[in-house]
Amino acid sequence: MSEPEPELETMDKRVQRSKQTVLAATYKLLSEGGIGGVSVDGVSRLSGVSKTTIYRHWPSRTALLLDACSKLGTGPTIPDTGSLKGDVTMLAKHLAHELQSARWPAVLPSIIDAAERDPDLAQLHAGLHAGLMAPFLEVAERARKRGELAPGQKASEIVAAIVAPFFYRRWFSREPIDEEFVKSAVRDIVGRSKYK
Amino acid sequence: MSEPEPELETMDKRVQRSKQTVLAATYKLLSEGGIGGVSVDGVSRLSGVSKTTIYRHWPSRTALLLDACSKLGTGPTIPDTGSLKGDVTMLAKHLAHELQSARWPAVLPSIIDAAERDPDLAQLHAGLHAGLMAPFLEVAERARKRGELAPGQKASEIVAAIVAPFFYRRWFSREPIDEEFVKSAVRDIVGRSKYK
Repeated sequence: MSEPEPELETMDKRVQRSKQTVLAATYKLLSEGGIGGVSVDGVSRLSGVSKTTIYRHWPSRTALLLDACSKLGTGPTIPDTGSLKGDVTMLAKHLAHELQSARWPAVLPSIIDAAERDPDLAQLHAGLHAGLMAPFLEVAERARKRGELAPGQKASEIVAAIVAPFFYRRWFSREPIDEEFVKSAVRDIVGRSKYK
Repeated sequence: MSEPEPELETMDKRVQRSKQTVLAATYKLLSEGGIGGVSVDGVSRLSGVSKTTIYRHWPSRTALLLDACSKLGTGPTIPDTGSLKGDVTMLAKHLAHELQSARWPAVLPSIIDAAERDPDLAQLHAGLHAGLMAPFLEVAERARKRGELAPGQKASEIVAAIVAPFFYRRWFSREPIDEEFVKSAVRDIVGRSKYK
């Protein structure tokens, strides 16, 4: 294999850097103002990259949003403590912390809002949701294989039962998600499994 | 008491009619595009009422939104069947129907999104949420008085346990809220009360 020609390499690096700058600017605007706060004009102003160049890489504002949003909500490493209670405790603590300090919880409602009307963003939302749920699903599946779930109880139902109260508190009742709440949520989930 | 002067009465009626027209237009734009779909320009175009007149009645877009949103999510009549199970069944069926056919579920995410950044809209959201929860809270309070809740179980916790899975399905997992789901949700709630 021969080395790339120096000029081509430089060009490619320049393109990559410019794309990264645009994505970082988009992500910043997204974090600050939700999807409604992102316009190609605004991204161009903040990044210093011309609109023509932006449209060369992303054919539309939606395409740019999809790319920037894919950086949101990267899940935690999946715990494997050997019990549903242990795993759920770790995931619940992580979720509580994220919901109160990460950036994505302030952005997600704007994606859910857009998903009500825009099929592309509904698709994006479905992908983000699946990513957020993946560690919970994995942990619930393992519990099912160990025989820790009640007969007929689906892993996806356990996942919904774990996260729904957290989501309700974060976006609907806007109550604090404190240690006491996390403990009682875990107790509740474990109480629903085989001991039911 | 004397009759109002004819001219004043006409003027007052005209003002009332114009305000209603503006509110109806705002509500229509809100239903179609969420909060992001409402601008005073758009409301003026749709209603045929001038921006000057609109600003005479509402000092800002937020004030107009607050007024129009107060029409969203008027709760159901509160059932009183004599048991938690009976009351929750009626409310859950009503909620399932609303979440799948009413207009407010398509608008609420935009209010939640705005509430992340705008204190006035956070206030509006809190009011709407309290209104939505009021019938559930009333029913749970009655169950508490009848001794149907476990000792130490708060009415607000029961309310969260009832609605959180519905909200999760409607806005997060976007799964259907069918008869089977409603039945299992009711069974779950009743299972958490005094029988626990």
